Amino acid sequence: MSKLIDDLAAILGDGLLQTEAERSARARDTWMRSQIQISAGSPVAAPLAVCAPSSSEELAEAVRACIAHDTAMIPRGGGSGVVGGVLASADSVVLSTERMTGLRAFSSNDLLAAFGAGTNGLEAEKRMQSEGLSIGHWPQSIELSTVGGWVATRASGQYSTAFGNIEDMVFSLEAVLADGSIYCSRDTPRASAGPDLRHLLIGGEGTLGVITEVTFSIRQQPESEVRQAFHFGDFEAGLEAARKLMRAGWRPAVLRLYDGRESWRHFRERLPKGNAMLILAHMGPAALTAVEADAVSTICESNGVAAPDEVVDGWFEHRNTVPTWDELLAQGIVADTIEIAGDWTRLPKLYHAVIDALEAVEGVVAASAHSSHAYRSGANLYFTVAATPAAPEDYTSTYDAFWSAAMNAAASIGAGLAHHHGVGRVRRDWMREELGIGGLSMLRSVKKAIDPHGLMNPGVLLP
Amino acid sequence: MSKLIDDLAAILGDGLLQTEAERSARARDTWMRSQIQISAGSPVAAPLAVCAPSSSEELAEAVRACIAHDTAMIPRGGGSGVVGGVLASADSVVLSTERMTGLRAFSSNDLLAAFGAGTNGLEAEKRMQSEGLSIGHWPQSIELSTVGGWVATRASGQYSTAFGNIEDMVFSLEAVLADGSIYCSRDTPRASAGPDLRHLLIGGEGTLGVITEVTFSIRQQPESEVRQAFHFGDFEAGLEAARKLMRAGWRPAVLRLYDGRESWRHFRERLPKGNAMLILAHMGPAALTAVEADAVSTICESNGVAAPDEVVDGWFEHRNTVPTWDELLAQGIVADTIEIAGDWTRLPKLYHAVIDALEAVEGVVAASAHSSHAYRSGANLYFTVAATPAAPEDYTSTYDAFWSAAMNAAASIGAGLAHHHGVGRVRRDWMREELGIGGLSMLRSVKKAIDPHGLMNPGVLLP
Repeated sequence: MSKLIDDLAAILGDGLLQTEAERSARARDTWMRSQIQISAGSPVAAPLAVCAPSSSEELAEAVRACIAHDTAMIPRGGGSGVVGGVLASADSVVLSTERMTGLRAFSSNDLLAAFGAGTNGLEAEKRMQSEGLSIGHWPQSIELSTVGGWVATRASGQYSTAFGNIEDMVFSLEAVLADGSIYCSRDTPRASAGPDLRHLLIGGEGTLGVITEVTFSIRQQPESEVRQAFHFGDFEAGLEAARKLMRAGWRPAVLRLYDGRESWRHFRERLPKGNAMLILAHMGPAALTAVEADAVSTICESNGVAAPDEVVDGWFEHRNTVPTWDELLAQGIVADTIEIAGDWTRLPKLYHAVIDALEAVEGVVAASAHSSHAYRSGANLYFTVAATPAAPEDYTSTYDAFWSAAMNAAASIGAGLAHHHGVGRVRRDWMREELGIGGLSMLRSVKKAIDPHGLMNPGVLLP
Repeated sequence: MSKLIDDLAAILGDGLLQTEAERSARARDTWMRSQIQISAGSPVAAPLAVCAPSSSEELAEAVRACIAHDTAMIPRGGGSGVVGGVLASADSVVLSTERMTGLRAFSSNDLLAAFGAGTNGLEAEKRMQSEGLSIGHWPQSIELSTVGGWVATRASGQYSTAFGNIEDMVFSLEAVLADGSIYCSRDTPRASAGPDLRHLLIGGEGTLGVITEVTFSIRQQPESEVRQAFHFGDFEAGLEAARKLMRAGWRPAVLRLYDGRESWRHFRERLPKGNAMLILAHMGPAALTAVEADAVSTICESNGVAAPDEVVDGWFEHRNTVPTWDELLAQGIVADTIEIAGDWTRLPKLYHAVIDALEAVEGVVAASAHSSHAYRSGANLYFTVAATPAAPEDYTSTYDAFWSAAMNAAASIGAGLAHHHGVGRVRRDWMREELGIGGLSMLRSVKKAIDPHGLMNPGVLLP
């Protein structure tokens, strides 16, 4: 392999990171299962080397060198993923976008902004905000994640109900494909020119190539924001209000409904125990948010009760504050979040089936959910599960058990098994249920066509 | 080939159409170039047979029989396409969706409706309207086209600026792929579970398979509709108003801006010559359309002049009335429409470049445009060109010349070369410009992976 290292060094210069510290720091994402392994004293393998090219051309050369040496490549953005989508092996090379950063092209007139894929999410958003503009994508990970990672994982942000998910914001993209070629999609607002090939990279989780640049169709910062909250007798009643307001054609940027357990955890002074809190933020032109807030209020008050606006302020203040896996493990807690989706009719039984399945897992001490992304025809459910296994030796098996319980329960009700965190390794074994036999076969065909050697992020996505 | 016919007859029974009349009637779409050929006395070849299966399973069997006999297959919906996407050869078999029709599943609660791919567009929309609902897609071809054709061609409707294009309405789909397997996408409102494979079929123009069923995420019929119109000193001034209102976050369902020539043609009593008419229809909750109409009016009046609402009523009345190619050819006129797209900054020069290029073509007597689909970052341009070649022998060469002129002019300015009619055969030779070398190579790889024998709609999409 020293020949490969020599070749990569010749291509990348000081963009080839070789120290133990540099390699270890880029070996994985933020998957709880990796963290459990590390806390048990078994470190994750460091890759052979980390390629941190400064340009797509350099990256393409590095990819071709890896192919020539039959070496697996692990694309990496901010490492904030939580599904094991980045996990190096000792004989692999990490392809990091960390030096492909910054605003590369910008047209305020056209609301277009192109960023290097490695640009930190919050930096990209702040850069746009300095122009009075916004990407409109605000994932909880915004301080850690990269714009390329957003696209590669098909991410959702907290304003998705009004501004869409990441696929609704991508104008065009550039990627180095698994064969070392460079793909640039067309700079056009919309095309009917064959299949939209961008969608092979969006959500591809680095299995077909490495996204190197993303051009977003950005937006003006909302002229106004109106916040309001309501609570409902139970989660189902809240879902019904959400369904009705979506059906009526309103699109609050934030639409988050917490189940009774999470509502009691976060807002206990504000509602009766068991009630479900719905928090809303309407964003847009002032004339629009005013009428939207009114209309939504009327819908929500038909089966719910208004809560003080401060409830929403509190959420905004703390929305990106989450404990680290390490902090939880130090307390003997194995936890994760599991997001799925379904149509409105399925959601109530889906909610109960997954909660019941999680609670039936030995060691699970808490299971709860909220819904944070709504559509005309359904919404997501975002479960949080915590377990306190008897002994550290049981951490991994408990983790695997609650994931299996949730996925199997959701699959039995026909839900979508992955709303926005992606598949990585944690959902890989359910891709047959998720895609169907035909879909899985189609994905395998595409993978083979674009990555004939199977060297790009092996072990991810495909079972 | 009689063995193939026997095999297909065994699979399809009376779903195999064999008479000359049946085969000829399904040999092509509504491409002007085919019409020229026919008017010159050279009929388009009829296919060997037409398969009109009643189910996806029957279709899949028929596809496998065609593969076994190495026979090209031409998928066909309503035949209303205008780019040569359906054109049989004498040794091919047409795969018609005409017997896979009707509403197959429906949930008003979830705003979901599944239609057989061969369902006529207007029938599907009327069925939904009978429930107080709407698909929200209203192409000019709605009386002729099918829901499967909408998806296969990545169509746009007249309400796209508010309700999106067809890809924004598809919830899930089923297709028989080119290898005879059946693909069903997942019934979930949104997923991050690998590449969104639906996008290989959406806009695939039948080159990867035949769409057999489409489930739409439908919507309530708009509670209210407000119409208004404005005229501007020139087309550029109108584009600027459109850009501003999109940027402000408003989304009128209908946003159509006619250039000076088309405005004079349609609305000459309503505006000074050379002015550009913008017609708008705001659709949605009454409270929303009221504030949207007000805000848009303020924007438009900053550089335009209000016109009477009846201008919009007139458009609604006549919007689906267009002359047939035959009627034009009978008058010695060779005409077509050419839709492209670009960002706001590029649109004015794109408009002039294409108009100039069209007018420079020998025989062209009229070239004009409107913009009918707007986005945050740009819009489409929809050109209409008419020529009166000296002799019928010049019809085809004139047709080819004005298409080349438009495509080359648009490509030189970096426009998107195909907004919503698709590629078919007419744009095939510009797919390198449209997709780039990387994109074209990627499309070829995907085509080979899904259709290894190259039997599904050969001659379309790929140069």
